[in-house]
Amino acid sequence: MGTVSLNNKYAVQFIEQNEVAAVQDFIAATHRKIHEKTGAGAEYLGWLEWASNFDQNELARIEETAQKLRAKSDVLIVIGIGGSYLGAKAVQDLLQPSFGLNEMDVIYAGQNLSGRYLEELLAYIEGKEVTLNVISKSGTTTEPAIAFRVLRAWMQEKYGEQAADRIIATTDKTAGALRKSVEKSGYTSFEIPSDIGGRYSVLTAVGLLPLAVAGVDIRKLVEGAAQAEKELASPNVFENDAYLYAAYRQILNARGHSIEVMASFEPAMAGLNEWWKQLFGESEGKQGKGIFPASVIYSTDLHSLGQYLQNGRRTLFETMISFTADEHESKIPYDEEDGDGLNYLADKTMHEVNQQAMNATALAHVEGGVPVLTLEVERMDAFHTGYLLYFFMKACAMSAYLSGVNPFDQPGVELYKQNMFELLGKPGYEKKNN
Amino acid sequence: MGTVSLNNKYAVQFIEQNEVAAVQDFIAATHRKIHEKTGAGAEYLGWLEWASNFDQNELARIEETAQKLRAKSDVLIVIGIGGSYLGAKAVQDLLQPSFGLNEMDVIYAGQNLSGRYLEELLAYIEGKEVTLNVISKSGTTTEPAIAFRVLRAWMQEKYGEQAADRIIATTDKTAGALRKSVEKSGYTSFEIPSDIGGRYSVLTAVGLLPLAVAGVDIRKLVEGAAQAEKELASPNVFENDAYLYAAYRQILNARGHSIEVMASFEPAMAGLNEWWKQLFGESEGKQGKGIFPASVIYSTDLHSLGQYLQNGRRTLFETMISFTADEHESKIPYDEEDGDGLNYLADKTMHEVNQQAMNATALAHVEGGVPVLTLEVERMDAFHTGYLLYFFMKACAMSAYLSGVNPFDQPGVELYKQNMFELLGKPGYEKKNN
Repeated sequence: MGTVSLNNKYAVQFIEQNEVAAVQDFIAATHRKIHEKTGAGAEYLGWLEWASNFDQNELARIEETAQKLRAKSDVLIVIGIGGSYLGAKAVQDLLQPSFGLNEMDVIYAGQNLSGRYLEELLAYIEGKEVTLNVISKSGTTTEPAIAFRVLRAWMQEKYGEQAADRIIATTDKTAGALRKSVEKSGYTSFEIPSDIGGRYSVLTAVGLLPLAVAGVDIRKLVEGAAQAEKELASPNVFENDAYLYAAYRQILNARGHSIEVMASFEPAMAGLNEWWKQLFGESEGKQGKGIFPASVIYSTDLHSLGQYLQNGRRTLFETMISFTADEHESKIPYDEEDGDGLNYLADKTMHEVNQQAMNATALAHVEGGVPVLTLEVERMDAFHTGYLLYFFMKACAMSAYLSGVNPFDQPGVELYKQNMFELLGKPGYEKKNN
Repeated sequence: MGTVSLNNKYAVQFIEQNEVAAVQDFIAATHRKIHEKTGAGAEYLGWLEWASNFDQNELARIEETAQKLRAKSDVLIVIGIGGSYLGAKAVQDLLQPSFGLNEMDVIYAGQNLSGRYLEELLAYIEGKEVTLNVISKSGTTTEPAIAFRVLRAWMQEKYGEQAADRIIATTDKTAGALRKSVEKSGYTSFEIPSDIGGRYSVLTAVGLLPLAVAGVDIRKLVEGAAQAEKELASPNVFENDAYLYAAYRQILNARGHSIEVMASFEPAMAGLNEWWKQLFGESEGKQGKGIFPASVIYSTDLHSLGQYLQNGRRTLFETMISFTADEHESKIPYDEEDGDGLNYLADKTMHEVNQQAMNATALAHVEGGVPVLTLEVERMDAFHTGYLLYFFMKACAMSAYLSGVNPFDQPGVELYKQNMFELLGKPGYEKKNN
């Protein structure tokens, strides 16, 4: 059993016993395709052994830079969109306290085009000491480029020539507008490896620098991913839970369970849900195929989407993340009067109640015709999070290949951008839509 | 054209011209069923003319109570789950500034079973002046009841006998454990009307009290809903955009577009997306039917789910909310060097760019086979929000009836609770699952 393990007890009744074994040959062949880098998109497999080969100088430089930023910032603003921020935000949400209790304030910009958002952000940083980490391979992606223009101007106004010391760029090694800015303005910079796509980049400087500033133990994060590399190296679906997860997904999809609901019982998982949706949605949603990725936080959403999940259209399956260790000792207090009738819980921790809510939900959903997979993770800590990130990346590559698509491209994301450039009158884009 | 209007220009090519006209008889009959209160669940139609008949004494009492709470709180904690908090959170997110800039701090508890969440919340309120609004029809729903136990004990520790002056209960008029607490402890209380279900309750004291504390103009909110009542009273689908929206949804669903993606280009809409998912998911997801409700914030999620939406499984349709007024004047700054190539935007406001991103996305998705409905709303203000809430409630009732289900029940939400009570050993629940 691995550090993260797939429990299929709530799914086995939805598939025949031989169905997983039947895909083993396909799994083994795809495993070779991944590890020998012979499949479609193989030039983007840099993440596969990234953690175990991590450049120790780079890691040290990230930590040193983070230390310097922490020392002079009230707020770090991370400018990025899609894969350039979702990984950092996911891990930050999961590992740092909420309610603004974290010692370091890390916020995100350039991930939307809302004037209101940017105005509120500017009001918020008024009077605060600010540093920027701008993350963009090209430096010309519209959303982060606009935010960087606005925030760089704000920094220059406030800090004058010292502004450049407060701007860190994470970008392509040699090419692009942001790399040019680095050369011209002397920003400290980090590289986005050319063989790792945005949605697989969380364990590079893209994710690690903001996380180190936030106070996350990035060495443990990388260590967890390296452990996953080791544990998830078997070509045998019955010895590799990432592949087992991929196999179940595609078998369930073929049986009409074409929506996957990623469910967790911890609100802190909300960011990871979003990262997971990008990873699987963007890797698999092409050529008219793909499992639609949705997510919920329970028990919250049992009181909103619970009815649908129990009795709605039967095209769903569910994957639950279970954190098994009881890390928070809050117990339900005893109450003399027991007006609410909760005294039967009075000796229990919140964790016990939450775990039973999970079991109860899985049992109910199975009865309602929803297969439920459970991923068991011991703790919400950096090591286990790093493991989980790698688990999903490897499972995603396998799952996308099993469905016959390239896990690493995203041909469909250009059309709206071209339309937008046309509508906004960008030079070089002729009008086809007006 | 109504205060909120449905623009179908990006959807007409996906349906035949006569399809909407063909359901007019069914719409008219259902309209009568709604207004004459003769359909399934008609005992829960209290929301239908609630806004125009709003009890003015009640409204004044909500405002007065809110004033008192504001004067003595740093933080209002709203304890509730599902319909007891999603409406207030939705409107608060949409109308109040983010980044903690709001003058009054309103936070939510009792909407999950996470020990970590509750511990962090307790750490956050340390040293702050706190008031509670506990919202529960019964007072025995597990999640809010646990949170109330814990927070009430905290309040009693801090304020002693004065704690009761800082607790407001919103609950059933006569029955239930929370009503009994009110009678015993002398809490100020408000009523949850017996003819309005949780997901339709945002314009009652359930939503209005926390919103008034947060600083929302609740009179304008109610006024907007009353305006919607008036404008959306026609039985003719071509004169009633709420019904037109309902008709399109069911026509598209019948054609295999069984996932609806609610999309907005403002991050502040995230809470309203969640409220909308409960409203439609819980009203329609039953008897093996229902459009699966999903949501996105653009352009953020174009960089995560955009690929899927453009090229994935073609079982989607999209509803975009467009805020048409340019309320935020931020312009893209001009930059001498133009390294990022954005100077072609330098005379434009963020709003113009964001609106063109929306048009560009709609054009791209239509080309990719996704019908797009657009709901045009002038402003993100209390009046238009009140209108929009009513628009969705009325559209939902119509849509659910059109699909042959009761819009007002939720028979599927009990099973996991029974399982949970059994697993937790609640007296009176025999073991069937162990």
